[in-house]
Amino acid sequence: MHADPGVIFAELRAFERSAALKGAIDLELFTHIDDGSTTPQEIAGKTGASPRGVRILCDFLTVTGHLTKFGESYGLTMNSQILLSKRSPSYLGSISDFLAGDQQHAALWQVAAAVRKGGSVSEEALTPDSPMWSVFARAMAPMIRVFAAAAIPRVLSGEAAADVPMKVLDIAAGHGLWGITLLQQNPSAEVTGQDWPTVLEVARENAQKAGVADRYHILPGSAFEVDFGIGWDLILEPNFAHHVDQATNIKLFRKIASSLKSGGRIALIDFIPNDDRVSPPLAAGFALTMLTATPQGDVYTFAEYEHMLGEAGFHDAKLVELGPMPQRLITAVA
Amino acid sequence: MHADPGVIFAELRAFERSAALKGAIDLELFTHIDDGSTTPQEIAGKTGASPRGVRILCDFLTVTGHLTKFGESYGLTMNSQILLSKRSPSYLGSISDFLAGDQQHAALWQVAAAVRKGGSVSEEALTPDSPMWSVFARAMAPMIRVFAAAAIPRVLSGEAAADVPMKVLDIAAGHGLWGITLLQQNPSAEVTGQDWPTVLEVARENAQKAGVADRYHILPGSAFEVDFGIGWDLILEPNFAHHVDQATNIKLFRKIASSLKSGGRIALIDFIPNDDRVSPPLAAGFALTMLTATPQGDVYTFAEYEHMLGEAGFHDAKLVELGPMPQRLITAVA
Repeated sequence: MHADPGVIFAELRAFERSAALKGAIDLELFTHIDDGSTTPQEIAGKTGASPRGVRILCDFLTVTGHLTKFGESYGLTMNSQILLSKRSPSYLGSISDFLAGDQQHAALWQVAAAVRKGGSVSEEALTPDSPMWSVFARAMAPMIRVFAAAAIPRVLSGEAAADVPMKVLDIAAGHGLWGITLLQQNPSAEVTGQDWPTVLEVARENAQKAGVADRYHILPGSAFEVDFGIGWDLILEPNFAHHVDQATNIKLFRKIASSLKSGGRIALIDFIPNDDRVSPPLAAGFALTMLTATPQGDVYTFAEYEHMLGEAGFHDAKLVELGPMPQRLITAVA
Repeated sequence: MHADPGVIFAELRAFERSAALKGAIDLELFTHIDDGSTTPQEIAGKTGASPRGVRILCDFLTVTGHLTKFGESYGLTMNSQILLSKRSPSYLGSISDFLAGDQQHAALWQVAAAVRKGGSVSEEALTPDSPMWSVFARAMAPMIRVFAAAAIPRVLSGEAAADVPMKVLDIAAGHGLWGITLLQQNPSAEVTGQDWPTVLEVARENAQKAGVADRYHILPGSAFEVDFGIGWDLILEPNFAHHVDQATNIKLFRKIASSLKSGGRIALIDFIPNDDRVSPPLAAGFALTMLTATPQGDVYTFAEYEHMLGEAGFHDAKLVELGPMPQRLITAVA
């Protein structure tokens, strides 16, 4: 028979790979190995864990390519050293707290129920006012920092010059890093981050660390309810539109359009699949995350964004690739 | 930087792939498509699910290679058609009930806690008397049936002839398929399946379906407590030794040795890693399943089995590959 049960077996057990990596990050296994504890006994001594447990987990991580093994000693791969040891300035293990956190995981596990209902069945769905956004803001910062550094030059490429004075609103700012990166790249810009007060605390900390706190302002409240004011040159809306349905997006786009200066721009950064909705893989696959984690979220194609933006009075919508990050950029003029 | 955050991201979210496939099997999505319902509307009509939910799940399954898509219609890959449609005689979607079932999944998700403790922290750990063994026996039968057909000839290759009369005991028989397959391949054999009474019901059903019920006998009770009697030519112990520690294995091997005829054989079928304990991948990786799902389970190398069997009085231990199945066979003589 031309069928491979191994593929089905591996797919049904793929969750074990997530569980193992999440567990290793929680135990700071990669950091202990980086510090020179390389045998199960030594690592167990540092973590207060069982040597047998450490040995089994390290073997599994060797099988899945996150560790190396020589005799009874484990070592770090280059990827683990750079990204998963807390000694590295590029450490991003914290993303596990959000991406494989218990709340996300519990919601995403219930696929059949979410498909039946057509939306999240989780009591802690990722609504715009979910307390998860504070976790998100702290957990995802290291990854977003890398993405923002790559994306913001492309957001600003529509401007006349790099240091043109501009008033920027960052919607659902979270960690604040999109706006903060913009402030670093344009010393004449002023950015206001809008989000819930507890989330904006994280943004303020990040603005301070980045040395741009004097040009970073806050607007606490819900994106759907708070008054945006008027006169913005640029309004950023990164990773937000996918949480809600098209009607809600159009409503928010209208509010954004009426808050921008004439000729001002909206910059959406989001998972945007091709028209076939099954490519590229990460952007297309992200729809399932939204189905299981939100009441009405989805991913939208560029054609759908063009339609929603047009309904809200925007024109000249443009799609810009942000590779290697999985999101794309859409800009449009009010 | 020579690091790829995408690898970490994908690994932390691998559980979504398991959740999607498990959800699709639960919804009988592949069967509905096989029956000719190929659009989200049509499939939703059959499943009583939301068209939006079906569309998003089918797109995800297309991304992960389990479906094809043309326009708004989905189709089956060859693997999905043969293995995941209930119209196929080779359907094995039921394995999801065990491999990605809520109980296994909940235990396996808690890696850090299990590593700290050195064993399962789940209240429903896979102890030999767990009620999960009835689920296991029903869910895994289609996959084991294929494995047993490939493995039993190699178990029997130590015998003088294919139809030599033999008295066989199958320890922790579960679905009974190892013994039943042996009965099909040797018309002169008699097999006794030992397991809990509720589990043996499944074995008896399978023996009846296979037309060998008249030569299939049962011995209800715990492998550690029930009297095996004496005079067995062959004692099968498939997929059982990994649930317990070495001391417990030696104890059971002694009991087996004293129940076999002089010159009788034990046949262990199990996940047996190489001495490095990190290859081959499935056998080595299975240790983490045992760490998180059982109090003291593990995988053992051939050298460790040779030692345990030797302690119990066995000699002439032999390791036999069972490829393409991930388990290996060890035989030894009492």
